Amino acid sequence: MTPFSLGEWLLADMHQATANAPHNALHRYRSVYAGIRKAILSRRLTPGIRLPSSRSLAQELSVSRNTVVAAFDQLLAEGYVTAVTGSGTFVAAIRRNDKVRSAVVRAGRGPILSARGRRILTAPGGATHEIQPFVPGMDDFSVFPSKIWQRLQNKYWRDSPAELLDYAAAGGYMPLRRTIANYLSISRSVRVTTEQVLITAGTQQSLQLCAQLLANAGDLAWVEDPGYWAARKVFEACDLNLRPIVVDAEGIHPEVADLTTEPRLIYVTPSHHYPTSAVMSLPRRQALLDLAAAKGAWILEDDYDSEFRYSGRPLSSLQGLDNHDCVIYLGTFSKILYPGIKLGYMVVPIDLAEPFKRTLYDTQRPGQVMLQAALADFIEQGHFATHVRKVRQVYGERRESLVKVLRAVLGPHAQLSKEESGMHLVIELPDQASDIGIAAEAAKQGLVVRALSSYYLGNQRRSGLVVGYAYVPTQRIKHFGTLLGHIVKSALRR
Amino acid sequence: MTPFSLGEWLLADMHQATANAPHNALHRYRSVYAGIRKAILSRRLTPGIRLPSSRSLAQELSVSRNTVVAAFDQLLAEGYVTAVTGSGTFVAAIRRNDKVRSAVVRAGRGPILSARGRRILTAPGGATHEIQPFVPGMDDFSVFPSKIWQRLQNKYWRDSPAELLDYAAAGGYMPLRRTIANYLSISRSVRVTTEQVLITAGTQQSLQLCAQLLANAGDLAWVEDPGYWAARKVFEACDLNLRPIVVDAEGIHPEVADLTTEPRLIYVTPSHHYPTSAVMSLPRRQALLDLAAAKGAWILEDDYDSEFRYSGRPLSSLQGLDNHDCVIYLGTFSKILYPGIKLGYMVVPIDLAEPFKRTLYDTQRPGQVMLQAALADFIEQGHFATHVRKVRQVYGERRESLVKVLRAVLGPHAQLSKEESGMHLVIELPDQASDIGIAAEAAKQGLVVRALSSYYLGNQRRSGLVVGYAYVPTQRIKHFGTLLGHIVKSALRR
Repeated sequence: MTPFSLGEWLLADMHQATANAPHNALHRYRSVYAGIRKAILSRRLTPGIRLPSSRSLAQELSVSRNTVVAAFDQLLAEGYVTAVTGSGTFVAAIRRNDKVRSAVVRAGRGPILSARGRRILTAPGGATHEIQPFVPGMDDFSVFPSKIWQRLQNKYWRDSPAELLDYAAAGGYMPLRRTIANYLSISRSVRVTTEQVLITAGTQQSLQLCAQLLANAGDLAWVEDPGYWAARKVFEACDLNLRPIVVDAEGIHPEVADLTTEPRLIYVTPSHHYPTSAVMSLPRRQALLDLAAAKGAWILEDDYDSEFRYSGRPLSSLQGLDNHDCVIYLGTFSKILYPGIKLGYMVVPIDLAEPFKRTLYDTQRPGQVMLQAALADFIEQGHFATHVRKVRQVYGERRESLVKVLRAVLGPHAQLSKEESGMHLVIELPDQASDIGIAAEAAKQGLVVRALSSYYLGNQRRSGLVVGYAYVPTQRIKHFGTLLGHIVKSALRR
Repeated sequence: MTPFSLGEWLLADMHQATANAPHNALHRYRSVYAGIRKAILSRRLTPGIRLPSSRSLAQELSVSRNTVVAAFDQLLAEGYVTAVTGSGTFVAAIRRNDKVRSAVVRAGRGPILSARGRRILTAPGGATHEIQPFVPGMDDFSVFPSKIWQRLQNKYWRDSPAELLDYAAAGGYMPLRRTIANYLSISRSVRVTTEQVLITAGTQQSLQLCAQLLANAGDLAWVEDPGYWAARKVFEACDLNLRPIVVDAEGIHPEVADLTTEPRLIYVTPSHHYPTSAVMSLPRRQALLDLAAAKGAWILEDDYDSEFRYSGRPLSSLQGLDNHDCVIYLGTFSKILYPGIKLGYMVVPIDLAEPFKRTLYDTQRPGQVMLQAALADFIEQGHFATHVRKVRQVYGERRESLVKVLRAVLGPHAQLSKEESGMHLVIELPDQASDIGIAAEAAKQGLVVRALSSYYLGNQRRSGLVVGYAYVPTQRIKHFGTLLGHIVKSALRR
């Protein structure tokens, strides 16, 4: 059906790229995906053409059928191909002006993007609404006390002191750093002095600083699998090699083959694994700390949503257990306040405080000191604690309400993730169910949920749906939850 | 005098590091500087010990004496050594808690920072007050209309619409992108549609995106010499190799040896070279565009202070002359409004718009949409134009006043840079004068000026002082200018 042998062409492409690829499973998936995309963009595959079946293509390429199916699903999700039930997968009509034009080779200039750029861009990435996966419109930031916030900001704007309009020179606004140190030491058992706290423009910036200062291009980073794609994107952009490490119910679980590798960085979300909600057990925590100390690796502990715990005592941080100064603790205000605030923090071992502060200043020129001042007051005057309590209550209700309606609709068809914390839950699906397909189905009906399998780098993928409930107004949870439940149920019946 | 031969030790160190160093002149300077620093930090050179003379050390290392002097000056400026007139240079007493502790090797863990981290950190960097080089206290952001600004912000905070609290998903707040496109096309002759404009968190972030997406680790970037150190820091952090290109009165001026190299990026400040104030001539602009097109290189045009032109017609942008889509235009609001606003923009060729937007979102998760909305109104309601006029007038007066007082005190002893624009001027000094020494002298008296020689990567360094006048209140210019003039004059007499 195709005007040339897609398989042959992909094989040549894959062969060329495999030479220096460290992770073959991941690489095969990406090669198939990128190769077909390239063929579509370069018009080797013209719109309307039917792709070979996943089975025959898998055979021709000597890869698993799952790999090809995953690549097809990704292409489907991105609009490069369309699927017609019972007929097959067809190349979609793409206008020359579409965003996919980006990968085109420009006449006389070679590829527009560098190899690094293409790698960053094609790494499994995100939808644009990462924190509102389950919401048709983002109409509910109403929990945030914007009146109080406005008043605190105005207090400083009234006088507009120069030091609040200037760049943030010394690791951030000192009163905010002090307040965060207090907060973390009390509520998260982080061992911290003010000197160790740096204010950043969010977790991405914190991760980037770690990758740039603690690792070299080509170094290895262990990442959770499944895991947070945006962290991986930062590591990719810093030229790190990623090794996906399996996560089970007790958190990250390196296998024997993993232990023979020498990671420079280990990225984990121990309080509440993203996205499966697993909490890292104490034995695992101790083992990971020992391992990092033995290997001279740094652990990057991303405690992105530690505030959202609805029952039981919050677990203390991994950093608080560390006797080797090998943990860097990362937090953010984007999840608990509002995303666009773009203020995060990191706690670094004292030896790293000065080089991190200096590099932050030299390479990023941080600012937003006005916001930092207002935030310091917000915390010190007790508004933060009040807000956290309120958010916990509201999100807890939403969670409970969603769980209830999903259980009612789905019955025994699907398990829900058990941890009582966070801003999302996972509907666990049978392995043969295509979570990407169900997510696409839900998207058609205005519900943005994410396929659990899309959070994996490795080949062992579980099927599920990551459903955020934090930004869905409580009174609409039941309506949307029912809708989602029925979509899942009818997909599972097929 | 030293307990071991410093020269021998440095030679071993330099030999080890020279193998893969592309730029020897720069590298020699850094090696000497870093080597001595390492010796001090590791206590091979203990406090109070006298360093060998620059002449004898230069001989032993077979480098120019200038190289050693520059390294000594840098160490002096950073407090690692002290100089006693007539006696020599001595290792300073450094407390274990001082910031210089950062480079120490931690027992059992090897170097704390990666090689990349150490390179970023030791690259010639900045004082923390880069934009207020000539000001004892930063007491004058009074030009910024903070009342109007506050009112515009409050308008949006009152309703706090969700899309202004969320991340900035699509390259920034659309009305701001549209407004910037209009502004640039009218006032800077930039060829631009809204689609090509991305809002970033400032020029550092814009540069980083370019380096990550358009270049690979190890690729070559041409940078102006002298030039903007913070841009270089970003390139270093993205693992680019830097090649300093001489700047003369007409702007960047590649030599024959430069033309044999293949830069992937060319970073320039054509409207107003930083820090010498040279304006790139039209023939140079055309030659640079042709060169970039021929080499398949990208030109990064940093138009950081295009608004500050006090006389004559503003020059149009390099981007506006480009027929090959090889220029990326960068601007910022941090210079004209207030530094901490951290809003900048870039104009990319249309093919790059989508990959840049996507990567910006995936790797940085940009925010601050509230600020972007207020800024769009600020521009559309005419406040920006009013502010630019006012700033031009105020800074123009300050410049004029500073020039007058410096001419009166210095007379024929020093030339002042001629361009009538910008936020700083350069006092050009005779080549034998140590600008670093004079800057240190001025710092003792509370005046923060920067040595022109510290802006160089290459060996051909001119001596001078970079003096910012933008943040010095007009009524104090005369006082501080006189003080500075006398410091320079008496240093030149010595």
